[in-house]
Amino acid sequence: MSELHPYLAQIVEPRDLHRFSDKELHEVVREVRAAILGHVSRTGGHFSSNLGTVELTVALYAAYDIPPDKVVWDTGHQAYPHKMLTGRLDRFESLRQYKGLSGFLRREEHELDVFGAGHAGTAISAALGFAIARDRLGTPERVVAVTGDAAIASGMSWEALNHGGDLGSDLTVVLNDNRMSIAPNVGALTSYLQKLRSRPTLQNLAQRAKGVVQKLPSPMTRVAAGLRHGITHYFAPEDTGTIFEEMGWEYIGPVDGHDLDSLLEIFRNVRVLSGPVFVHALTVKGKGYDVAEEDARKWHGVIPFDLEKCEMTKAAGPVTFTQAFGDAAIECAEQDEAVVAITAAMPDGTGLTGFSKQFPDRYYDVGIAEQHAVTFAAGLAAGGLKPFCAIYSTFLQRGFDQVLHDVCIQNLPVRFFLDRAGLVGDDGPTHHGAFDISFLTLIPHLALIAPRDTTELREMARFALSYDAGPLAVRYPRGASDDRLPEARTPIVFGKAEVLREGRHVSLIAVGSMVGPAWEAADQLAARGIDATVINARFVKPLDAETIVAAARETRFVVTIEENVQTGGFGQAVRDALHEAGLGDVPHQILALPDAFVEHGSQPLIRRDCGLDADGIVAAVTSQVRAHLR
Amino acid sequence: MSELHPYLAQIVEPRDLHRFSDKELHEVVREVRAAILGHVSRTGGHFSSNLGTVELTVALYAAYDIPPDKVVWDTGHQAYPHKMLTGRLDRFESLRQYKGLSGFLRREEHELDVFGAGHAGTAISAALGFAIARDRLGTPERVVAVTGDAAIASGMSWEALNHGGDLGSDLTVVLNDNRMSIAPNVGALTSYLQKLRSRPTLQNLAQRAKGVVQKLPSPMTRVAAGLRHGITHYFAPEDTGTIFEEMGWEYIGPVDGHDLDSLLEIFRNVRVLSGPVFVHALTVKGKGYDVAEEDARKWHGVIPFDLEKCEMTKAAGPVTFTQAFGDAAIECAEQDEAVVAITAAMPDGTGLTGFSKQFPDRYYDVGIAEQHAVTFAAGLAAGGLKPFCAIYSTFLQRGFDQVLHDVCIQNLPVRFFLDRAGLVGDDGPTHHGAFDISFLTLIPHLALIAPRDTTELREMARFALSYDAGPLAVRYPRGASDDRLPEARTPIVFGKAEVLREGRHVSLIAVGSMVGPAWEAADQLAARGIDATVINARFVKPLDAETIVAAARETRFVVTIEENVQTGGFGQAVRDALHEAGLGDVPHQILALPDAFVEHGSQPLIRRDCGLDADGIVAAVTSQVRAHLR
Repeated sequence: MSELHPYLAQIVEPRDLHRFSDKELHEVVREVRAAILGHVSRTGGHFSSNLGTVELTVALYAAYDIPPDKVVWDTGHQAYPHKMLTGRLDRFESLRQYKGLSGFLRREEHELDVFGAGHAGTAISAALGFAIARDRLGTPERVVAVTGDAAIASGMSWEALNHGGDLGSDLTVVLNDNRMSIAPNVGALTSYLQKLRSRPTLQNLAQRAKGVVQKLPSPMTRVAAGLRHGITHYFAPEDTGTIFEEMGWEYIGPVDGHDLDSLLEIFRNVRVLSGPVFVHALTVKGKGYDVAEEDARKWHGVIPFDLEKCEMTKAAGPVTFTQAFGDAAIECAEQDEAVVAITAAMPDGTGLTGFSKQFPDRYYDVGIAEQHAVTFAAGLAAGGLKPFCAIYSTFLQRGFDQVLHDVCIQNLPVRFFLDRAGLVGDDGPTHHGAFDISFLTLIPHLALIAPRDTTELREMARFALSYDAGPLAVRYPRGASDDRLPEARTPIVFGKAEVLREGRHVSLIAVGSMVGPAWEAADQLAARGIDATVINARFVKPLDAETIVAAARETRFVVTIEENVQTGGFGQAVRDALHEAGLGDVPHQILALPDAFVEHGSQPLIRRDCGLDADGIVAAVTSQVRAHLR
Repeated sequence: MSELHPYLAQIVEPRDLHRFSDKELHEVVREVRAAILGHVSRTGGHFSSNLGTVELTVALYAAYDIPPDKVVWDTGHQAYPHKMLTGRLDRFESLRQYKGLSGFLRREEHELDVFGAGHAGTAISAALGFAIARDRLGTPERVVAVTGDAAIASGMSWEALNHGGDLGSDLTVVLNDNRMSIAPNVGALTSYLQKLRSRPTLQNLAQRAKGVVQKLPSPMTRVAAGLRHGITHYFAPEDTGTIFEEMGWEYIGPVDGHDLDSLLEIFRNVRVLSGPVFVHALTVKGKGYDVAEEDARKWHGVIPFDLEKCEMTKAAGPVTFTQAFGDAAIECAEQDEAVVAITAAMPDGTGLTGFSKQFPDRYYDVGIAEQHAVTFAAGLAAGGLKPFCAIYSTFLQRGFDQVLHDVCIQNLPVRFFLDRAGLVGDDGPTHHGAFDISFLTLIPHLALIAPRDTTELREMARFALSYDAGPLAVRYPRGASDDRLPEARTPIVFGKAEVLREGRHVSLIAVGSMVGPAWEAADQLAARGIDATVINARFVKPLDAETIVAAARETRFVVTIEENVQTGGFGQAVRDALHEAGLGDVPHQILALPDAFVEHGSQPLIRRDCGLDADGIVAAVTSQVRAHLR
C-alpha cells in the first residue's frame, strides 16, 4: 500500500497535506488519480466525476485547515478524493459493497463527512446552516460548499444562494463546472455558464496583467486584494455583473480546475475573504483517462472494467425494467401523438434516451428540477397532452407537493413512471425507493400500479396511455424481472388484481417486484405441504379488495409482501380491507421494509436482510402456519 | 347589482372587455375596486393583494383574447379581479364560505380558472406546460403566467425560468411586484428587484424619448419594435443585463402596474411578441384603500370590517396554538442560547413575529423556500444549534424530500413545528394539513407528537428543546384549543400517551385536535350508559403500544380519531399494534379524513362533514356498540 501511494499513505486527515510542499502536492494528485483508476476499475462506482475533482480537492484541502474547516460536498459521488484524503484509502476495495465503504458521504462513516447527500442541490443550504451555526457559536472555522453545474440549477440551490447572498455570512461556494450532470446539462443557465466559461480564465488574466498587479502593495495582499474586489472586474470590466454577483456573491472565475498551482493560490486567498464568495472552477469529467474524457456520460457510473484496454462491456442480460419502459414509451408515442416524455436529468437512467432520439420535439429534459418537472407535466396534461413523467422513486420525493397540489388536487392525467422503486442496491439509503407506495397512496385521486415483470410493465404503459380519468403512477424496481413467473397473463383491468395460483392454506399477496419471490416461495411451500394462493396485486391503489377478501376468506391466513416501508404501505391497506370485511381476526402478516434506512449492498443481499425474498416469505409463513393451518 | 356595477354587469368573460373603449375600461377598474372593497369588507378574505392587481387584470384581460388565451395565476389569492371578470361577481357574497366561492382559483369552479394554486411558485411551470401543449397541438392561443415577487424567489419558479428561457416557446410572465409576500420579502433577489425598481419606469422612458421613437417606421410597429429589442436596452443601455435576460427572457420593465393606459399599450404589444417575455410590473398592495396601503401585512387577509371607519378589530378570543407556539419559542430561546427559529415567509402565521423582534439575530425568514428552510435547519443542527423550524403542515410538503434525505437519514435534531395541521377552514383543499401524519410517520427516525391544547403545546415545545436524540415534529391545528379538557396533566414522557379517563366499553384514542371532541363524546356516551376510556395519544410516533393495547384488552372496542387521512395515519399504526399484540379480532374503527380533498368552509362545518366532532364520534360508537357491548 504505502509503496504504491507513498504520499497518500501519510495522510489521515486533510491537515496532513500542510506538511507537503506544493511540488509534493502534485505527487498527491497523481496518487489520488491513480488510486481512483485502480480501485474503481476493480470495484465499479462513480468514475468520471471523481477523476474531475482530484486537483480541486487536493488544492482545497491543502489550502484550508480541515478540521476544523468544513467542506460540504453536493451529491457525494464526486467525493472519492475526499474519502482518500480522510484516511479511507485502504477501504476502497469495499466501495459500494455490502457493509463496505459508501459511494456517498455519510456522517456515520466519518466525522469529516460533515453532511451527506445523494440527491443534488443540498450543499449550499447545509453549508449556510454550518456557517450561521459558527457565527452564533463564535468559532473560527471556514465553511465551503462544493456543488456542480447541474446541482446549481436545482431550485433549492437558488433558494440557498438567495438566502446566503442576503445574510452575508462568510461562506464559499465552489462550482465544479464540468458541463455535465450525468447527461449533458440543459436549461438557460447552462448557456449562461457557457458564456462565463468563454472568458479567459483568471489565471490567464493574472498572467496577462502582471504589470498591473506588480503596482499593487505587497505580494501577499496583492492577489487577495485583486480577488477581494473581484479580479474579474478589475481586468475584464466588460464582463461584469454575473448572476451570482446580482445575488450577493462575490464571483471569482472562471478558474482552471486542473491547474493545481493556481488553485492553491486562489483557495489560499479565498480562505481569508469575508462574506459570500462564489468560485467558478472549470473541470473535465473523466480527466486523465482519455476514453472517459471523451464520453463522460458512458463513464459516469461504471461496472468493473479493464483499465488497460479501456473496455467496459456490460454483459448482455435479460431486459431491464428501464429498457422495457423506454421501449414502451416509444411504442405509445408512435400510437398517440399526444404522448410527450419528461425526465429530470436522467435520460439514460429512466430509459428515455431512445425516445429522445426518435421524438426530440416531444421529449423534455428539465434538468435536476423535479418540482418543475411535475408541475410542467400538470400543465401539459391540462393543455391536452399525455405526459409520461419518468422520475426515480426517490427523486420524486422532491416533487411530492407538486404531485399532490398541482396534479392530484386537480385530478390531471399525468402518467408517472417510477424506476428504482424498492431497494436499489449499491447506491444505498439516499437512493432506495423505499417510500413511494406510502407517499403516493396517501394522496387522493392518484392510482398506483406495479408490474410483476417487464412484460407487464409494457402492458401497464399501454394501460396508462389509455387511462385518462386522473393521475396514475407505475412503480418498478431497478434491474430485470424474474422470469420464473407464468407467461399466461390476464389483461390489465382498472382496480383488478391477478390471481396467479390458488391454494388452501395461505394467501401470498405481492406487489410488483415481490410477485416473483412470492411465486417461488409458493413452490417451496408446496414441497412442505403448504398450499398457497399467489396474487399479483397490480393495483396498489385502488386496492382490489374483492379479490383479496375472497382469498382471505378461503385461506384464513394472509401474507402481504412489498418493497416499501410498512407505514402507509400496501399491507396496511390490505389490513384495512380485511377489517372492513369483518375479517380482522384473520391472521395477516405484513412483509415490508423496516422502519429504518436500509444500507447499501447488492440487491439480493439487502433484500434477504429485510426478509424480502422467497426464503424470507417461506420463513414467515412456516413460523406461523402450525398455529393457523387447518 | 347592475346599477351598482353597470360595466361589470355586462362582463361574462374577459373578451367582453373588448366592447369597451379605453376610457370605459377606467370605469371597469373603478367598479372592480369598489366591488372588492364592498364584498371583502363584508365577507373577509384576501384583501390588499387583490386591490393591487385591479389595473393589471383589467389591462391584461382587455389586451388579450380570453378565451382562448390563457392566464395562469400564481397563488390564486390575487385573482379576485379575475373572478369578477369571468362572471362570478354575483357569487362574491359566498366567498370562502361553506359551499361558496373559493378564495383561490379552481379548475372545477370555472373553465377560465385554467390552473389552480394555493402554494406559491407554480404558475410559470404550469404556463410553460400550456405553452408547449399549444405548440404541439398547433393552436394559436397566447399563454401568460402572473406571479409575485415572493413566489418568483421560490426554487421551482427558478427551475421553470431556467427551462422556459431555454425552450424559447412563446410565453409571457408578468411579475406582479408589490414588494411583499404576506410579510415583507427577504433574500438577495429582493434587493436586486429593488435595484430594477429604481430605474425610471418604461412609461417615463418612452415619454422622455419621444423624439427617438418618432423616427421609427409606423406608429403601430414603433412600440412593438422598441419592446422587441428591449426598449429598456435602447433607452437605458447602462442598465442592461438583468438576471432574467441572462436566463433567456426578454425583460420589459419596470412598468407602473396602476397606470391603466400604459398597461393596455404594453400588453397589446407584448401579446404579439414571440419567445419568452418577462414583464416587471410595480404595484402597491392595498391600492386605493389608504390604511391597507400603509399596512399591507395587517390587511393581507381580513375578517369582515367597517369600510368607512377603516377598522378591523379581531375579537379577543382564547389563546391560539399559533400564539402559544410563539410564546413558547421565545421562552425556549431565553433558556437556551442554541435555539434559533426559521420560517418560510410566514412570521405572523407561524407566531414568530415576537421572536423575530426579541431575537433578530437568531431568527431566519428564508422566504417562500421550504426546501432550503429544511436543509438549512439540518445544517444548523449539524453545526450544533437547536433549530425550531416552523412551517405550516401543507407547506412542509414542499420540503418532504429534505425532511427525509437531509434531516432524517442523518438523524439530525431539527425541531419542526407544524401549524395548520388538520382542516384549516376557509382556505380549502390546498391549505388543509390533511396529510402530515402520513408523510412524516413513514420516515424512519422522526418522532411526531401532537398536543391536545395550547398548554400542552407549550409543554411539548419545552420537551422538543430537551430532545436531542433525533428529529421531532409537533403538529397542531389552526385556531384555539378546546377548554373542556381537564386541567390536571401528566408530564410529557417520550413515547407515552396520556390516559384522561378510564372506562369499560370503548377506548377513544385521539390525536391532538381530536382529544377535545373525544372527551366531549365520552360525556355524551356516559349519558347513554356507555363508559369510555379517553386517551390523548400525544405520540403519533413512536406509538405508545403498551397503553393502547392495555386499553384495547380492557374495553375490547377501539375507536381512533385523527385529523389526517386514514392511509398511513395514526389509526393504521394502532391497528398494526393491535395485530401484533394478537388483538386483530378487537373491533377497531378508524375515524379520519376521507380519501378525498376536503372543500373549504368553516372548521366546525367541514369537521362535522367528515365525522370528526363529538357527534361524529358518538354516532360511530353507538352504531357499533350494540354488537360489541358486553
